[in-house]
Amino acid sequence: MTIRLAVAGVRHPHIDTIIAEAGHHDDVELVGIAEGDRELRGSYTARYGVRGYDDHAQLLDSGTADVIAVGDVYSARGAIVADALRSGHHVLADKPLCTTRADLDAIHAAWRGGDRLLSIAFEKRFYASTLALSEVLAQAELGEITMVTATGPHKLTRHRRPDWMFDAASYGGILNDLTVHDIDLLLHLTGVSSGQVRGHAGNRGNTDRPGFEDHGLAVVETDGGPIAALDAHWLSPEAAPYHGDYRMRLVGTGGTADVLWKDDELVVATHERSPRDVPLPPRRRAAADFVDALRAGREPSVTASDALAATSVALAAQESARAGRPVTWDIAGYLPGSGGAPLDRPTSRRTP
Amino acid sequence: MTIRLAVAGVRHPHIDTIIAEAGHHDDVELVGIAEGDRELRGSYTARYGVRGYDDHAQLLDSGTADVIAVGDVYSARGAIVADALRSGHHVLADKPLCTTRADLDAIHAAWRGGDRLLSIAFEKRFYASTLALSEVLAQAELGEITMVTATGPHKLTRHRRPDWMFDAASYGGILNDLTVHDIDLLLHLTGVSSGQVRGHAGNRGNTDRPGFEDHGLAVVETDGGPIAALDAHWLSPEAAPYHGDYRMRLVGTGGTADVLWKDDELVVATHERSPRDVPLPPRRRAAADFVDALRAGREPSVTASDALAATSVALAAQESARAGRPVTWDIAGYLPGSGGAPLDRPTSRRTP
Repeated sequence: MTIRLAVAGVRHPHIDTIIAEAGHHDDVELVGIAEGDRELRGSYTARYGVRGYDDHAQLLDSGTADVIAVGDVYSARGAIVADALRSGHHVLADKPLCTTRADLDAIHAAWRGGDRLLSIAFEKRFYASTLALSEVLAQAELGEITMVTATGPHKLTRHRRPDWMFDAASYGGILNDLTVHDIDLLLHLTGVSSGQVRGHAGNRGNTDRPGFEDHGLAVVETDGGPIAALDAHWLSPEAAPYHGDYRMRLVGTGGTADVLWKDDELVVATHERSPRDVPLPPRRRAAADFVDALRAGREPSVTASDALAATSVALAAQESARAGRPVTWDIAGYLPGSGGAPLDRPTSRRTP
Repeated sequence: MTIRLAVAGVRHPHIDTIIAEAGHHDDVELVGIAEGDRELRGSYTARYGVRGYDDHAQLLDSGTADVIAVGDVYSARGAIVADALRSGHHVLADKPLCTTRADLDAIHAAWRGGDRLLSIAFEKRFYASTLALSEVLAQAELGEITMVTATGPHKLTRHRRPDWMFDAASYGGILNDLTVHDIDLLLHLTGVSSGQVRGHAGNRGNTDRPGFEDHGLAVVETDGGPIAALDAHWLSPEAAPYHGDYRMRLVGTGGTADVLWKDDELVVATHERSPRDVPLPPRRRAAADFVDALRAGREPSVTASDALAATSVALAAQESARAGRPVTWDIAGYLPGSGGAPLDRPTSRRTP
């Protein structure tokens, strides 16, 4: 059976990775691209030889696709994802999934209303050193994880960035865009489900674009779990051969793990064993995992719960940065078997 | 002229580094050691062939010393430092300087009352990569510093630690003990003078000693300067060949600097220039700098203002961790030429 993949929005080059996935599988076919920008749409439809649509509603109505890959302007994504789920499509979104809590609630309601798969292409989950880290944590060699620190430097290369990225409303903030990766890993790797987050965001190097945040920090307190300090910025040195020296350190009661993504390396040291480079499995692709899940009728590795939960905490961090106060977070309502609490009561509220 | 050095308290092995300084100079003479613990006192006085004193008051009264090096139990240090200054001695303290704000105020008053030198032996200031970093920052190659992150892992080697380190009152907390290094560097390298700090501290790996904090994080917001996330812990892997892989990253609007203290390395990358290992000057010794300052009649590199300021912010971080709230900090009153504001109004107060 062929999996028919269509794309809603090609405003960020991440979407190219998902489009490219069709080339890796005989049974995955790219069937259409919806994009409001006529020039951009023309360039993509010509390159891939597929039909173009003016907007995502036309694409969904066409009934030609099984899976919608979402790569529109960030603030437009929430409505597309919810519409796609409601009209019976599976959804693989680029990150971020959406930019507001109202969007997230709508996506959650649409997803719970059907039987479609929903995922975010969190590539970082599938890097070789991340996969190896999951194995190390499963062995409990590090004991209880006590602190997690991560840094997410990104090159801005400003002349190549579209205008909408510098607008707070369409971009949605740096913590929601970049820190969401490390928030996802924190939740996924440690199993924490509630706590408080204090977000910080600012602009020092791009003050002529006051709506833009070029650096941020989220301090995530977790009930019964580690404390995490996760930073991100758009100030990664442009002359460097790498996009960003992004890394994560986990400190456990039994030892430490350093995930050096730039160098594809995982270094583990414990109280019993001297530091060692952990052998890495092959890297996987987020979109490939999603295709495999569709074929097998299983959940993708980044489950809908994972996607909703990470987005929820990232939005809480962003809200905290705006309010200048910590915000309580609780992902229980997104977890399988939950009663849907996030729709019935606010999950993110300011602390008294 | 001979500089007569005496020691008050030998409860932490850091003091050995200061004692050893006498061996490096023909004109520095170790003249006495005050220590309440009879066995410890005997072992030190025998090793160095100097007179022992039961307590610091006897040592100060003897009039035999010019400089008092302070290495007592942390909570005992404040009184010793203030007494030593008041009785006309110069003071070089191991860190932390003291454990309470009342102590700090007393030290400040004693120091302002005389003409003696006061410093903390912040060794990290004198590491080769730190010295090189100061030079890089002076060139303004990194632009405006926007974020500072630092990690301070330490091996606990618990069986070798004295009991008083596990008692909250005598130890004074992990942020005051360990994070004070990176707070000093933050203040020294960026010139910030006020802001807010949110401290976090906890115990996950040593819960049978509930008064002990085995990990902590201080998030320092600075008015008009960078945001800093400074962590520290006592969970550094015991089987590693290093005491701790402590490092600092500075992110500026023009580039980044990674200070890798464990490997004696400074890596700088900018928007114009690819990453490079910066050539390092020779390492210096904190106590040697203090001796040089005494001889030259100048302030030591870690000035009294620096010592008071870093301690003040570290105590604010510790207070914040206890209160679960951010605490405002302001070092203006400690800076040269200030009107002594910290004694007249609280510098550390909870935010409304």
